[in-house]
Amino acid sequence: MRRISYKLAVVLTVTSLALLSGCNKDVDAAKAPGDASSSSTVGNTSPDVQAVMQERGLTPDDLLAAAKTYTPSGKLDDHIMFASGGHSGQIFVIGLPSMRMLRSIAVFTPEPWQGWGYGAGNDILKEGDVNGKPLTWGDTHHPNLSETDGAYDGQFLFVNDKANARVAVVDLRDFETKQIIKNPITMSDHGGAFVTPNTDYVIEGGQYATPLGWKYAPIEEYKEKYRGMVTAWKFDREKGRLDQAQSFALELPPYWQDLASSGKKVSDGWIFMNSINTEMATGGVEDKKPPFEAGVSQRDMDYLHVINFKKAAELFKAGKFEKVNNFPVIRLQTLIDEGVLCFIPEPKSPHGVDVTPGGEYMIVSGKLDPHVTVFSFEKTLKAITEKKYTSKDPYGVPVLDFDACKEAQVELGLGPLHTQFDDKGYAYTSLFLEPAVCRWSLGGAYASKHPEAPWTVVGKTSVQYNIGHLSVPGGDTTEPSGKYLVAMNKWSIDRFFQTGPLLPQNFQLIDINNTGEKMPVLYDLPIGVGEPHYAQIIKADKLKPWKTYPQVGWNPEKQAIDPESPKPGTERIERRNGEVHIYMTAVRSHFTPEHINVTQGEKVVWHIVNLERAIDATHGFCVPAYNINLSLEAGEYEKFEFVADLPGTFPFYCTEFCSALHLEMMGYLHIKPTDATAAAK
Amino acid sequence: MRRISYKLAVVLTVTSLALLSGCNKDVDAAKAPGDASSSSTVGNTSPDVQAVMQERGLTPDDLLAAAKTYTPSGKLDDHIMFASGGHSGQIFVIGLPSMRMLRSIAVFTPEPWQGWGYGAGNDILKEGDVNGKPLTWGDTHHPNLSETDGAYDGQFLFVNDKANARVAVVDLRDFETKQIIKNPITMSDHGGAFVTPNTDYVIEGGQYATPLGWKYAPIEEYKEKYRGMVTAWKFDREKGRLDQAQSFALELPPYWQDLASSGKKVSDGWIFMNSINTEMATGGVEDKKPPFEAGVSQRDMDYLHVINFKKAAELFKAGKFEKVNNFPVIRLQTLIDEGVLCFIPEPKSPHGVDVTPGGEYMIVSGKLDPHVTVFSFEKTLKAITEKKYTSKDPYGVPVLDFDACKEAQVELGLGPLHTQFDDKGYAYTSLFLEPAVCRWSLGGAYASKHPEAPWTVVGKTSVQYNIGHLSVPGGDTTEPSGKYLVAMNKWSIDRFFQTGPLLPQNFQLIDINNTGEKMPVLYDLPIGVGEPHYAQIIKADKLKPWKTYPQVGWNPEKQAIDPESPKPGTERIERRNGEVHIYMTAVRSHFTPEHINVTQGEKVVWHIVNLERAIDATHGFCVPAYNINLSLEAGEYEKFEFVADLPGTFPFYCTEFCSALHLEMMGYLHIKPTDATAAAK
Repeated sequence: MRRISYKLAVVLTVTSLALLSGCNKDVDAAKAPGDASSSSTVGNTSPDVQAVMQERGLTPDDLLAAAKTYTPSGKLDDHIMFASGGHSGQIFVIGLPSMRMLRSIAVFTPEPWQGWGYGAGNDILKEGDVNGKPLTWGDTHHPNLSETDGAYDGQFLFVNDKANARVAVVDLRDFETKQIIKNPITMSDHGGAFVTPNTDYVIEGGQYATPLGWKYAPIEEYKEKYRGMVTAWKFDREKGRLDQAQSFALELPPYWQDLASSGKKVSDGWIFMNSINTEMATGGVEDKKPPFEAGVSQRDMDYLHVINFKKAAELFKAGKFEKVNNFPVIRLQTLIDEGVLCFIPEPKSPHGVDVTPGGEYMIVSGKLDPHVTVFSFEKTLKAITEKKYTSKDPYGVPVLDFDACKEAQVELGLGPLHTQFDDKGYAYTSLFLEPAVCRWSLGGAYASKHPEAPWTVVGKTSVQYNIGHLSVPGGDTTEPSGKYLVAMNKWSIDRFFQTGPLLPQNFQLIDINNTGEKMPVLYDLPIGVGEPHYAQIIKADKLKPWKTYPQVGWNPEKQAIDPESPKPGTERIERRNGEVHIYMTAVRSHFTPEHINVTQGEKVVWHIVNLERAIDATHGFCVPAYNINLSLEAGEYEKFEFVADLPGTFPFYCTEFCSALHLEMMGYLHIKPTDATAAAK
Repeated sequence: MRRISYKLAVVLTVTSLALLSGCNKDVDAAKAPGDASSSSTVGNTSPDVQAVMQERGLTPDDLLAAAKTYTPSGKLDDHIMFASGGHSGQIFVIGLPSMRMLRSIAVFTPEPWQGWGYGAGNDILKEGDVNGKPLTWGDTHHPNLSETDGAYDGQFLFVNDKANARVAVVDLRDFETKQIIKNPITMSDHGGAFVTPNTDYVIEGGQYATPLGWKYAPIEEYKEKYRGMVTAWKFDREKGRLDQAQSFALELPPYWQDLASSGKKVSDGWIFMNSINTEMATGGVEDKKPPFEAGVSQRDMDYLHVINFKKAAELFKAGKFEKVNNFPVIRLQTLIDEGVLCFIPEPKSPHGVDVTPGGEYMIVSGKLDPHVTVFSFEKTLKAITEKKYTSKDPYGVPVLDFDACKEAQVELGLGPLHTQFDDKGYAYTSLFLEPAVCRWSLGGAYASKHPEAPWTVVGKTSVQYNIGHLSVPGGDTTEPSGKYLVAMNKWSIDRFFQTGPLLPQNFQLIDINNTGEKMPVLYDLPIGVGEPHYAQIIKADKLKPWKTYPQVGWNPEKQAIDPESPKPGTERIERRNGEVHIYMTAVRSHFTPEHINVTQGEKVVWHIVNLERAIDATHGFCVPAYNINLSLEAGEYEKFEFVADLPGTFPFYCTEFCSALHLEMMGYLHIKPTDATAAAK
């Protein structure tokens, strides 16, 4: 290989940014994108490309990154990332390596382009109400793909709403939300949704403790009345729904349970869950008490919850629970008595707990500690068996001996948060404060996969800026691969054109298709539609999406033909039981019927089906003033209702540009006023 | 230059797709992206890049396109595109040439990531209600940037809601919506929002005729009672608001007015507006009448509305109007009597009317006619002066002689829709049915700018697929540039990984930084969050966005310091006039106060301000169960209210990952039940 003969004046400086600590040590600036001194060579690139590179200030490394990510028209991405949308309430689908957002999936927040909550999905959204109070958003945190034998199977996707403690189910045949379920005992979750290795259960861990059922209790009664929890939602794969009747929760001390992970392979049947605020701090900065930010960091160690989930499920089946808000809860004392729950001390305020592909190790990162701590499941099990407890927590939960469970501690850097794995025996941990991604080597059975000594730092790549989670394809499963890594950076600051005071997040694609210290940043993707937290990446060929709905008359909520769907030739308006039923079909480029005449005050039930069979032949359908808009994909049937309380003349139309004659695809809804003087003169 | 020495087996076939016509003639397949036979050479690219190209099946043209679009971390896009979001109700901000969506701007649809409608902006959204019926979406069609002397000035952005006939105003200092105004006389718009050359007025043209004020009238009374309209909203640049008191509408015949454009330079003071359905077809496919799609295409010609807007504004000032729904409407007969309105016949069912940069020509495309028709403003003015009328329409509007106004007709191809201009004397028209973008040469004063004969086709580029609008930077202004063109394609079909039956649209970036026939496609951007219709592209340096709000305590709705904003040290809970006022501050990483105690049934008024001064230091703030979520950018103050009707314990928290201690940035809202038995035991 020739060395670089082509030099550019532009060398991007790695902007050091450590907002809280001012620390930026250990980050090798030479690994930043755009650094002309790195190794790839474009010594004799074609004149056309050279001219563009010069004009645009691109380095040889930039061109290489472009070649690795640019995806020409019609070529498909080979990996698909599902990212939570944070407080947008949605999920984003992003293709790799092009880093293009392919679509959003409406989940907790109504979204009219998809018709979600505007005539479609209304019943599903309503399931998520809190005591009859409508909720029209969520704070999605952790999407989780369904698994078979601990590997993504591409069938379903689950996600939690931290703000209101709900879980949603998305069917990956049509990429639409099928269920939203409100947790009956808590108002706050975080450690979810995580599946067990065969998706028998979807796990929802808590966050901010409240009295169970979020009942009122003054903060002074925190220790007595507030509680944490973890809920196990039974998943019925056949029906594609969580089955509340077979689900249950575990009562936990009022710590703030945080991220959770299922065991796998050797640790299958166990659940590991972090916690913070084992201090049980209750804040009160207004009364000169330590604010939560200080109060929850007083102790050196918090507790990794080790849950014998198999045993917990048996206790549930044996009826050893009480009901809270009519939901089965296995009481904390029962968990202690039956040996379901114990703790391992962990460096304080950890964020992630991540289990290695074979299930051998649980890795935690106290975010104020520069190390990751690696616990051995085998050692932990031995410690449990041998009752190597050092103490009990204030609620009587036995605490295991830290050293008896520990396999290793590796000093990575400042602010370690989350860890993912690849197929080469490496682990990758996000370092929020540096900010950087750190590659380090696993030991044990993984040591033979890489040349480095076990449990050592291999390399670091600076990221821009303030990384939270990171994601590797299959990086939390039994079958990780190691081609890409996506750094999910919370702040973008100067990375993109300033779109006012509100800036996008920055997803950085990092090349980990190698060994050793170098992991170049390939691409920066602004996320300006939400604030993603976690993402999972799956090989595209594991997904089997429908191209159209299987048959005309398909009801996506039922995932079946709907007998109520109008058939071509049977379009009509029918009055029965005090309701006006409209049976309408849509096809390029007209609705049938085109005139709907009703009287003010009538209840209208509108049935509409898209008769198309071509891919991408979507029709929209809106009713002005009545806040109705649908997205009817090929074959889709929807039904919506409203009371025609506002009289007048309302032109309905297809809101998708479906054909050259799309403007003509319309009709009139005439609502005759009961007061004749209200009509047009 | 050396010819290609590097050959790839992969040659992408241009997929011919003409869903309605089956026609695909005249499109040169050789210009498609990924065709290895085209001219750029990468004969001796570096081994690293060559290896990646081979592995990924990239052609030399692909690499060139990658070099032209790839934007390394921290390099900023040089152009910014504002695209309507269609029935998503939003606006999307996209950077060029990287084709990355930088953020969405919430407009008509509540969006919790931005807090829009979840505690912020609620009053603005409420302004858009229809007769008290809440609307939580819109069908945004045509974003329009404010102009000074006919060129974008980067200050404001306007957009219409076709479904409910509303117009919104976005301030480009903070990229947030400041006003939503409901048109008082119509339920449907399309030809808007278009500004006059100095943004004195924002024009909103109609679409589907209804009785004025959308009152009830049976379809049989269509000709007598239904009417079209165009509304002129006076814009107060100082206040950044549309001023309803100085605004007015013109009554038009019940055709379906379509796109509109202001005159500029020589034609300043005039408005041109297309129409379809001059047949006044009323559909009725259910009664074996021709459906709208057939009925509105019976006549060969529709009418280009030529409006002497300067004169109309004078009539309004002179009080020559009547009030409909309390809004001034200049009656059709007055428009005729005063010579404000006349028609030019235009080939039927046109979509766009686009005025050349100097204002000399109005270009229309009957979408069922393969030509674009070029009208001369000078000739039109002469025809009006000389009263060259050939007939009157059924309402008495004079119809000008087509030939007297016509400058040229140019045969472009199938399904011409919209036209934009560059700085080299070319026009670009979207051809929906081919589908393609056609470059053609202007005549008159533009002829000297290009080597081709005037009014001839220069080149075509196939697009994938079904193009609607297209956009060139400044392409509809007095100062177009010609670096890029974005084809806004409605169907993507096979371009991206299939995300279920609902597919994204496809924005294709096309290189027009050249002359002659070749215009290569550089990039495909999936739009999976809405269905954009039109977009405008502005040079990035024309925008002057704020990096943070100017001062702490800033109220974005007022764009001023809010005296109600809490100041640090004055945080408190205050009961007055039967309301609980909470004065709260937010700063990394705590809220003050952290405990809020209220009693069930109390009305809560919550004041909260973000004290931060750093760029990107946004805090979120949510109240569970009460459907509240804010995005508080640095300095921002917001106020929201609710009745504490549901008792319990509700953990509020910062929904933005703002710092390493973001999980600790929380507090408790305690709502004490009036029924003591409802408290936790």
